[in-house]
Amino acid sequence: MQILILGAAGMVGRKLAERLVRDGQLGGQTITRLILHDVIEPQRPDVSFKIDSLTSDFSIPGEAERLVASRPDVIFHLAAIVSGEAEADLDKGYRINLDGTRFLFDAIRHIGDGYRPRLVFTSSIAVFGAPFPEAIGDDFFLTPLTSYGTQKAIGELLLADYSRRGFFEGIGIRLPTICVRPGKPNKAASGFFSGIIREPLNGQEAVLPVSMDVRHSHASPRSAVNFLVHAATLDVSLVGPRRNLTMPSVSVTVAEQIEALRRIAGERYVARIRQELDPEIIRFVEGWPRRFDARRAESLGFRAESSFDEIISIYIEDELGGELPG
Amino acid sequence: MQILILGAAGMVGRKLAERLVRDGQLGGQTITRLILHDVIEPQRPDVSFKIDSLTSDFSIPGEAERLVASRPDVIFHLAAIVSGEAEADLDKGYRINLDGTRFLFDAIRHIGDGYRPRLVFTSSIAVFGAPFPEAIGDDFFLTPLTSYGTQKAIGELLLADYSRRGFFEGIGIRLPTICVRPGKPNKAASGFFSGIIREPLNGQEAVLPVSMDVRHSHASPRSAVNFLVHAATLDVSLVGPRRNLTMPSVSVTVAEQIEALRRIAGERYVARIRQELDPEIIRFVEGWPRRFDARRAESLGFRAESSFDEIISIYIEDELGGELPG
Repeated sequence: MQILILGAAGMVGRKLAERLVRDGQLGGQTITRLILHDVIEPQRPDVSFKIDSLTSDFSIPGEAERLVASRPDVIFHLAAIVSGEAEADLDKGYRINLDGTRFLFDAIRHIGDGYRPRLVFTSSIAVFGAPFPEAIGDDFFLTPLTSYGTQKAIGELLLADYSRRGFFEGIGIRLPTICVRPGKPNKAASGFFSGIIREPLNGQEAVLPVSMDVRHSHASPRSAVNFLVHAATLDVSLVGPRRNLTMPSVSVTVAEQIEALRRIAGERYVARIRQELDPEIIRFVEGWPRRFDARRAESLGFRAESSFDEIISIYIEDELGGELPG
Repeated sequence: MQILILGAAGMVGRKLAERLVRDGQLGGQTITRLILHDVIEPQRPDVSFKIDSLTSDFSIPGEAERLVASRPDVIFHLAAIVSGEAEADLDKGYRINLDGTRFLFDAIRHIGDGYRPRLVFTSSIAVFGAPFPEAIGDDFFLTPLTSYGTQKAIGELLLADYSRRGFFEGIGIRLPTICVRPGKPNKAASGFFSGIIREPLNGQEAVLPVSMDVRHSHASPRSAVNFLVHAATLDVSLVGPRRNLTMPSVSVTVAEQIEALRRIAGERYVARIRQELDPEIIRFVEGWPRRFDARRAESLGFRAESSFDEIISIYIEDELGGELPG
């Protein structure tokens, strides 16, 4: 089995590649070749089977054709210009997130000849726009309030139409906020949700820019990879024409996140969180969804963590070697 | 005031042009120039102010720029490849309905310099896909089951994003089935909804291919034009970021349509309807929406007919000179 990952240099793409390398198989089929693609060179895990690491811009006409020419059985399309950049640079966002996605879909279609790969597309909860119901169901309408969300919503529509026409077996998964993100603090407005856990565990101070009652939904990077693997292997006949699914997540308040940190790590770590309200971030967060009703994805076998404690434990296991640093 | 109509040779476009010519103004502002565009030459009404009739394919790069170069104050974008053709010819449907729409939106954006026209886009109830709730609300999700519906849904998303970014003041209106369509019988699967009224009134036999309890939603061509004119003149600050509105309509069964024909015209006309069930059309119709909850559009001042009797009367007034033929 041959697998292509677009966006393989990103955090989720990298973890997906590591998982596939570790498993050596997907859905019971032995992996014979893994093609890792990104606009910057993806890391190349060291394994027995063939790994190709490709660097290019898939929104340049002809590039997508090259990527699918070897007819990969499963394609993970994780490539995207993220929210802030897509808002700042309209042309770039539409070029990568819309044109690139369409080039990829059309490249698959043009192969024809019975070629019909599984295509897993990472969408985003940014397809939804406030005001929201208390819990956002799968059937809540698409009214994004960012260009990124618009582009992801368009990707979802194309995915469903091309799947309906039989060009590929598409599954779109709307990822919740991924927490705890490994690595350095970043400037994303949502960064603090990970930061207030990650920084204390790494002996650093974290700033909490919002009030303790802010509610948000999370899943671990490990769950994100599980979602992708499950989407690549589930029986699409169970999904029907509505191909885009909101993934399960754990909905907690910031206070509950901090309580979980206290239970898992202790007061000493919690003491490293300093609240410093930031009116701009507070305003952003007000427009974000708080809770999802993901019963459809759950009934199809997608699973996230069942508590925020579990999310913290996974971070400690996967990123800190299972041990609490001082 | 300068007005551009794309898709001016279609039934609704033609009626819109006639209405604007008759009124001589839009929203209180005198019309100084009307630009009628289509891929075939639009009819050119005879009036005092300047009318340009243009023929081209607006999905050819550069064409859209030419169309908006004179900076029209109001743009009606009615141009589309219809449902059946978009399904039969995937490339053509995406080229006109998606690329063409995007070229138009970008051509407006690239003028910049404070140019911010009103843009009225005709979407369609085809953005919705079965299974449906009993009444489809504005907040029902977009899960089209045709490429045409997919392309219209993408147009809606682009319209909302470009409006949010301030490039134009966009309003998308989802037209219900337009009834009674004037002209010859056509092969569209939904054609019988008009045919069972139009043909009897014109002294011809009509075939009813479905059962009498089939329910569907209708508005007259006159209402379609009213919707467009209202969308071009309403206060967009009342609409907010959710720019796409399901238009009001009259939901009736076929039996109720025929009862209305009996009341308005008499038994002699009803006798010209012959039922001949068509399994293929029955199957199509099962997947169509039956009723809409258009309270949002209604609260913004959009009005359709209040009964099917009224819809028939409008056909007789507007197409038959107000008199019942033999």
